[in-house]
Amino acid sequence: MTTYAFAKRTRRVPKSFIREILKVSAEPDIISFAGGLPHPGLFPVRELKEAFIRLMDERGSESFQYGPSEGFRPLREWVCDRYRKRADLDISPDNVLITTGSQQALDLVGKVFLDEDDFVAMERPGYLGAIQAFSFYSEGIIQVPRMGDGPDMDVLESTLRERRPKIFYAIPNFQNPSGQSYNLAKREQLADLCARYGIVLVEDDPYGELRFAGSDLPPVFSFMKSSSLLLGTLSKIAAPGLRVGWVVGDEAVLDRLLVAKQAADLHTSTLTQQLAWQYLSTNDIDEHIEAIREAYGRQRDCMLNMIEEHFPGDINVTEPEGGMFLWVTLPEGCSSVELFELAIKEKVAFVPGAPFYVDGGGMDTMRLNFSNADEPAIEEGIRKLGKCIKEYLGGRAVTR
Amino acid sequence: MTTYAFAKRTRRVPKSFIREILKVSAEPDIISFAGGLPHPGLFPVRELKEAFIRLMDERGSESFQYGPSEGFRPLREWVCDRYRKRADLDISPDNVLITTGSQQALDLVGKVFLDEDDFVAMERPGYLGAIQAFSFYSEGIIQVPRMGDGPDMDVLESTLRERRPKIFYAIPNFQNPSGQSYNLAKREQLADLCARYGIVLVEDDPYGELRFAGSDLPPVFSFMKSSSLLLGTLSKIAAPGLRVGWVVGDEAVLDRLLVAKQAADLHTSTLTQQLAWQYLSTNDIDEHIEAIREAYGRQRDCMLNMIEEHFPGDINVTEPEGGMFLWVTLPEGCSSVELFELAIKEKVAFVPGAPFYVDGGGMDTMRLNFSNADEPAIEEGIRKLGKCIKEYLGGRAVTR
Repeated sequence: MTTYAFAKRTRRVPKSFIREILKVSAEPDIISFAGGLPHPGLFPVRELKEAFIRLMDERGSESFQYGPSEGFRPLREWVCDRYRKRADLDISPDNVLITTGSQQALDLVGKVFLDEDDFVAMERPGYLGAIQAFSFYSEGIIQVPRMGDGPDMDVLESTLRERRPKIFYAIPNFQNPSGQSYNLAKREQLADLCARYGIVLVEDDPYGELRFAGSDLPPVFSFMKSSSLLLGTLSKIAAPGLRVGWVVGDEAVLDRLLVAKQAADLHTSTLTQQLAWQYLSTNDIDEHIEAIREAYGRQRDCMLNMIEEHFPGDINVTEPEGGMFLWVTLPEGCSSVELFELAIKEKVAFVPGAPFYVDGGGMDTMRLNFSNADEPAIEEGIRKLGKCIKEYLGGRAVTR
Repeated sequence: MTTYAFAKRTRRVPKSFIREILKVSAEPDIISFAGGLPHPGLFPVRELKEAFIRLMDERGSESFQYGPSEGFRPLREWVCDRYRKRADLDISPDNVLITTGSQQALDLVGKVFLDEDDFVAMERPGYLGAIQAFSFYSEGIIQVPRMGDGPDMDVLESTLRERRPKIFYAIPNFQNPSGQSYNLAKREQLADLCARYGIVLVEDDPYGELRFAGSDLPPVFSFMKSSSLLLGTLSKIAAPGLRVGWVVGDEAVLDRLLVAKQAADLHTSTLTQQLAWQYLSTNDIDEHIEAIREAYGRQRDCMLNMIEEHFPGDINVTEPEGGMFLWVTLPEGCSSVELFELAIKEKVAFVPGAPFYVDGGGMDTMRLNFSNADEPAIEEGIRKLGKCIKEYLGGRAVTR
């Protein structure tokens, strides 16, 4: 067998433990709370099919040709309109770059900002996909503890002041994995701190439209006096299989991201961009999002109620006002990986929390997805999981 | 205005001169031989529309969900079948990773193989997209002169022996930009040399199916006793707007590429992968490719005939047996950029050759695309271009 001399950077990118878990979880008889999948029953399949047929009639071969690296202009205009409506942001299409899902925006940001010896700061726990993307460019990922209402501001300030990371990466709304959001004060403070220390904020907002309780808060982007990038996606409000996301920012940054985008994949699929635009411009997306919110709200309630009933009392669970995830903390010293092994025998899956930490922490945490499974499956799955947790905690008490 | 501290790597990635040219060339009254666009009249729009409707009936929401990073399994199987049929290659779907166009494969290859101080060798002139992709990872791009029938083997050997590049990147069939192909002997020799010096061959084959003269030759990949990667795409045989390509290789390499792929965009659009597969599995792709070959063959003949008639005799032009490009060399000392400025006033565009060289060479070269324009446009465009060349050469004679 050939031995390959891979680049050094490949050594520090976490082997995807979650990939293995998702493989196991995909077996048909498993109830999975592991993935981060939207509910497929909520994809607007009929409307997308109609939009496709209209698109073929109106554009035909143009939808299959190479397109501009910046993205399809009418879709970039739609992105601007959406932010104007949602958050009263004044953005020009020249500030919008379409990406192949918002994951690609993370890769491009890493590519144009991070040298090997640069630091990047993010939340603890933090989005695994961002840890992976940034790890390819820098070995200096620092995590700042996340509290119920945003980052620990003292740690954040000392981190920014002392380590001078080039970028701070945040998911202020219904974070993956914690499900929690920043309050208004912390949003403003974060903007101030980034300006003070000259740090680029990378604000990722895949779940912001999926709020089913409480009130919308403005993006941190709207308070920025210095540089920031705002990432968005159609994955959670329309369909992830389209792979259409975007990054909004200063033209000076977008110029660089554009060169990186070109080298990365020339441009995002013309077909999926035009199809998305055709769908968005001829359907009531607000009505559609409202249906998603209602369904996910019910599914979250169902999961929380079942947890209340079936989990032991000393287990901490977040109660997110939106998004797709709950975050569970087991009693100290427990291992969610050991629990996973029990659970998978009972045909229930979740994601152990450790991969969301870069420092080996989080062994006692786990992420539960409530968007993908129907309520009867949530009921059965949480009942089984509760049984596993009790068994696990009981076994631990005995072996101690 | 904010000043950004971009990563050092951004400084060495060529500012895309070609992007500017393509913008100019896109004006409706310009006859453009500049882009690398297939002819949109040859996209199987009706068949793709029918395939989409069938796909929705058969799979519906599945086509819009997240999918595996490796790609849609039936499409990976199709890729294997195609290589078995075309080149008698025995490949398993486990050796195939679907990418967002084959451009993405270049980016992923750079990411997993190239450290800053590594060398990568490629042809001179070489594909601009590869220069861009690799430049983000390494500053050591070395070019080996390309002759009519493949690389200069003496220079190639001394380069591999003395500089020990990690990879050699080649387009053996109808290269972009030269339009020329490797003969059989050079294919075998290249395989031997890579094995001898432990170099990974990255064989890019976007145009291999577009042969309209001569006989097919086996991919270098088929002779490799050591490691190699074979890149392919649907962009030139079906439609580039789908952004569906692939890389074939050892599982040990694909494992690494897969982690990079996940970080780059999670996976290629489920919809475009499934649509492509639905189209490919219910249509006669050979018949379709034959139609493309015939059309491009006629367009090449038309362009060569017009050049014969309208260009001065001391201009060298390649006569490719396939693909999409002719390569033109002006008399020594001429500047194709100066010619471009004359030509654009006459509403004809092409790509000056310098960006295909990393060493500042190629000032007297230019690339002409013959796939995108219809024959009447080719006739008119070459007539005008011939006039510009004569004017340019005449002006030069006078000023000397």
